[in-house]
Amino acid sequence: MKSTILSRRDLDFLLYEWLGVDDLTKRDRFAEHSRETFDGVLDLCEQLATRYFAPHNKTSDAHEPTFDGTTVTVVPEVKEAIDAFAQADLLGMTADERHGGAQLPVCVAQAGFAWIAAANVSTSGYLMLTIANANLVAHFGTDEQVDEYVRPMLSGRFLGTMALSETQAGSSLADITTRAEPRDDGTYRLFGSKMWISGAEHEMSENIVNLVLAKIPEGPPGTKGISLFLVPKFLVGPDGSIGERNDVAIAGLNHKMGQRGITNTVLNFGDGTHTPAGEPGAVGYLVGEAHRGLMHMFHMMNEARLGVGMGAVALGYTGYLKSLQYARERPQGRLVTAKDPSTPQVPIVEHADVKRMLLAQKAYVEGGMALALYCARLIDLQHTAESDEERDATTLLLDILIPVAKAWPSQWCLAANDLAIQVYGGYGYTREYDVEQHYRDNRLNPIHEGTNGIQGLDLLGRKVTQRGGASLAELGRAVTATCDRADSVGGDVAELARDLRASWQRVVDVTAAMFAAGDVDAAMANSAIYLEAFGHVVVAWMWLEQAVAADGHAGDFYDGKRAAARFFFRYELPRTAPQFDLLAGLDRTTLDMRDGWF
Amino acid sequence: MKSTILSRRDLDFLLYEWLGVDDLTKRDRFAEHSRETFDGVLDLCEQLATRYFAPHNKTSDAHEPTFDGTTVTVVPEVKEAIDAFAQADLLGMTADERHGGAQLPVCVAQAGFAWIAAANVSTSGYLMLTIANANLVAHFGTDEQVDEYVRPMLSGRFLGTMALSETQAGSSLADITTRAEPRDDGTYRLFGSKMWISGAEHEMSENIVNLVLAKIPEGPPGTKGISLFLVPKFLVGPDGSIGERNDVAIAGLNHKMGQRGITNTVLNFGDGTHTPAGEPGAVGYLVGEAHRGLMHMFHMMNEARLGVGMGAVALGYTGYLKSLQYARERPQGRLVTAKDPSTPQVPIVEHADVKRMLLAQKAYVEGGMALALYCARLIDLQHTAESDEERDATTLLLDILIPVAKAWPSQWCLAANDLAIQVYGGYGYTREYDVEQHYRDNRLNPIHEGTNGIQGLDLLGRKVTQRGGASLAELGRAVTATCDRADSVGGDVAELARDLRASWQRVVDVTAAMFAAGDVDAAMANSAIYLEAFGHVVVAWMWLEQAVAADGHAGDFYDGKRAAARFFFRYELPRTAPQFDLLAGLDRTTLDMRDGWF
Repeated sequence: MKSTILSRRDLDFLLYEWLGVDDLTKRDRFAEHSRETFDGVLDLCEQLATRYFAPHNKTSDAHEPTFDGTTVTVVPEVKEAIDAFAQADLLGMTADERHGGAQLPVCVAQAGFAWIAAANVSTSGYLMLTIANANLVAHFGTDEQVDEYVRPMLSGRFLGTMALSETQAGSSLADITTRAEPRDDGTYRLFGSKMWISGAEHEMSENIVNLVLAKIPEGPPGTKGISLFLVPKFLVGPDGSIGERNDVAIAGLNHKMGQRGITNTVLNFGDGTHTPAGEPGAVGYLVGEAHRGLMHMFHMMNEARLGVGMGAVALGYTGYLKSLQYARERPQGRLVTAKDPSTPQVPIVEHADVKRMLLAQKAYVEGGMALALYCARLIDLQHTAESDEERDATTLLLDILIPVAKAWPSQWCLAANDLAIQVYGGYGYTREYDVEQHYRDNRLNPIHEGTNGIQGLDLLGRKVTQRGGASLAELGRAVTATCDRADSVGGDVAELARDLRASWQRVVDVTAAMFAAGDVDAAMANSAIYLEAFGHVVVAWMWLEQAVAADGHAGDFYDGKRAAARFFFRYELPRTAPQFDLLAGLDRTTLDMRDGWF
Repeated sequence: MKSTILSRRDLDFLLYEWLGVDDLTKRDRFAEHSRETFDGVLDLCEQLATRYFAPHNKTSDAHEPTFDGTTVTVVPEVKEAIDAFAQADLLGMTADERHGGAQLPVCVAQAGFAWIAAANVSTSGYLMLTIANANLVAHFGTDEQVDEYVRPMLSGRFLGTMALSETQAGSSLADITTRAEPRDDGTYRLFGSKMWISGAEHEMSENIVNLVLAKIPEGPPGTKGISLFLVPKFLVGPDGSIGERNDVAIAGLNHKMGQRGITNTVLNFGDGTHTPAGEPGAVGYLVGEAHRGLMHMFHMMNEARLGVGMGAVALGYTGYLKSLQYARERPQGRLVTAKDPSTPQVPIVEHADVKRMLLAQKAYVEGGMALALYCARLIDLQHTAESDEERDATTLLLDILIPVAKAWPSQWCLAANDLAIQVYGGYGYTREYDVEQHYRDNRLNPIHEGTNGIQGLDLLGRKVTQRGGASLAELGRAVTATCDRADSVGGDVAELARDLRASWQRVVDVTAAMFAAGDVDAAMANSAIYLEAFGHVVVAWMWLEQAVAADGHAGDFYDGKRAAARFFFRYELPRTAPQFDLLAGLDRTTLDMRDGWF
């Protein structure tokens, strides 16, 4: 029985046959590794996902964490899964060996973690936050902070959170008001309230390590006055012992449409619930430099946003596999041209419209997976660049691809989940099957870690224009190189290349036209549509890459890749034409809309 | 404070300023009515929606019906709301006076009922099913059936269900196996099991009247052997008294993603739970003619499918109004060209991308509402046609519009709900606000009452080609007439007409091209995409109609109509161009896809 969590066959194709990630072992950082250790991680993640994560996905959705005013209770399977992952030494997959990590490539770690997220995105959230937190402190923190917090996080004794948003400051972090008052001993005392903090209260670890954005009084206004603090639930002694309770307390739980298995909280600092060392305020330790907290956070932004995109891919992917299995087993109706009711019903996978819904899902989720792994490998190349040119090129490419890698899957792999429900019909709308939960869970992804609207502003307002358009030019070189390789393959693949070249030229021309008029408001007004169209061109490129990699290989798997590439170019890429027309015309319909007209 | 359930201002515009439904009172059937009685119904529905339906919408979502093996328990507010609606004599809004109905136009009834559905779609379901059931029995049933069942349903003493689907027969009703054995006294005994039956068990009415599709043994195979039966939960004496329990029993409740407030059941007939009159089987009474059950059901299909479309519009509409209110109140960030963090934040309604999300919702929900009311009025014209020509023309138009009126809102007003969540950001993802529930509730609409895939097959495989393309030609005449009126208005409105004429020509040309090749499989393979493109052209027509109606009127409301029309023509209608290209090319990508390639 094939797994319906993810497809290992596809991951092998993408990682080895296409991206050649085993080549990374030639680089110093990954020299201890081999294809065997990579495979071992993928095997292990699949096993853990299957054994510990998938089985309680529905349970923790139906039985949300509860809060009695003091204690948060989470179904016990969550801790079992977290512990199993930690005991397999996977929290430090990408961390440096000197910090106890396995120093694996990000692309292998992302592929492995996708199994966990696809099996149970809520429980995976505790792990993802802990990993992100540990990596950030490892990078910017002191040696003491590494010893006291990073190592316990990588071993799973402590779990971590990221506390950025406040009720009045979500998309606009400049407006946070949590303040951090310096004390003579170099520590700080924090006062304020954070919103949407996942994993901030539970009994599943010895300690909870909150990474908190706050403002030091008298600092510069806006984002330039934000600093990063480590604020543990319990103070930690110099010997690593768990000490006094810090003044960190949740005010309550948020109840969400999906991703219900992970606690999501309003988190108060210094509200007087506790008085560590007899003083008011939550004890916090500065991480990195004062007033550079947002910069530090942005250092991990690429990986964080890629992680959200990969999470969206993972949910889309498992929904696709489940609806495919269902379509093969569910008899219903007869073919359009064979209506005799005395003949047996056919499995719905034989209906053209069901094939369309499955093929669209395949095109979205495999396209999204390709993009996510491509970006993950770019991060590895950037981290281990062997020349300034390589570092520069990978950075330019990553900068422009990351908003797409976050937003595109969170739109289109959610669309895949929508199609999965439709393939199941009424059954898909019930909680007896998995796909309705995937749809609910995935709906968070266009919102968090920068809404998709914010990604559009980032792409068009910053990434496309930065350094005189250097990122756009770098991406153009990469796209053209793929088209050149496709041309030498010839046949159908060269035909796809012709379409992609035309679409890419459209991107270049339209981008130039949008800024030529010098009307920034008008240029930015349709940034969300720019992101959509741009994203579709990028994913078409990913499909051409896959078609080239599949060329010359016979068999169902490769025929499937070719069919999905064809589908994407025929059914999806053409959607961008009217979007580019709209953008090129600097349409002001939305910009000129007045409040009173609604 | 403006209502966030629906907009009465918009309904007044659509019903009176545009459709001129007060003119219907010139027809005999509606001669007792006046604009005042129509307004009275709309006022009453708004009041009931506000007072009885909206307040428990979250309650009944969070506290689903429960089944202890004997009794189904529903939160008490549901019955209070049903009773309030019944006591206001609204169940018989459209029913004949001779049956105790108010004989109101369908378009007024639909506008009124939209308030109820927008406020609480689950509770409205009990009412909608009862109304549909009563109308069907009133039309095809005997006088006794009317007295014994229809009158008690119209007064709210009995509630009704529609029992069509079975686990193995959803989209393919030809495959139902529930059988109805004739007895010498003219009654039948039913044996079988039905799936997805809403409202089939509860304690909120004296009786539950199930309308059931079943096969009489030895009948023709497939859909031609299906008959319609009335199968009450309790047998009814000739004097109307409630008698013995019939052998109708639920096997369990289905637990859905949304629309949780209405019981949805597996309903067994003749499983031996009860033995009415000491005999096995559920007692059923034939409604109409034997073997014509599906035809009878289809007689009400237009209204049923329109009702689903209107329900989708209602949910989209209320989500739009709520997200608009939120956007006006929620300060966050600053305008693109004013980034000084020391200035106050602006309400998000001022951000261009939020305006886009609100304007898209407005275009979808007001466009959907226009289409639904247009079709409802067509039903009124058809029912009261003053000539054969009028009856023929309205029937042709309705036939081709109904699949669109069902599918388009259930796709695009669901998309509106998705945008409403996005406007709220993280808050929209929580159950503290309403919009996540609207999104979950609305997701059923593309599935039930014929999936949207089935609507595509119906449109392209039947409606477009029927009677030599007469329906398509009739619609073409209507579209052209609107364009002609727009031309005489001139200005921007005439420009929209130019675009609509071009799009309509595209529909005609592409439709011809698809069938010209004589390859039915290829023509039908992309029927879902045909429906999408066709639907967008139809709704563009609805927006041109509204723009013409708004012409010459000054003020925010009319400026809003003009802006939304412009938005639809610039942002939405152009989506159809690549779809038509694909269709005209008879693309075989999905048709040729093989199971093994997935």
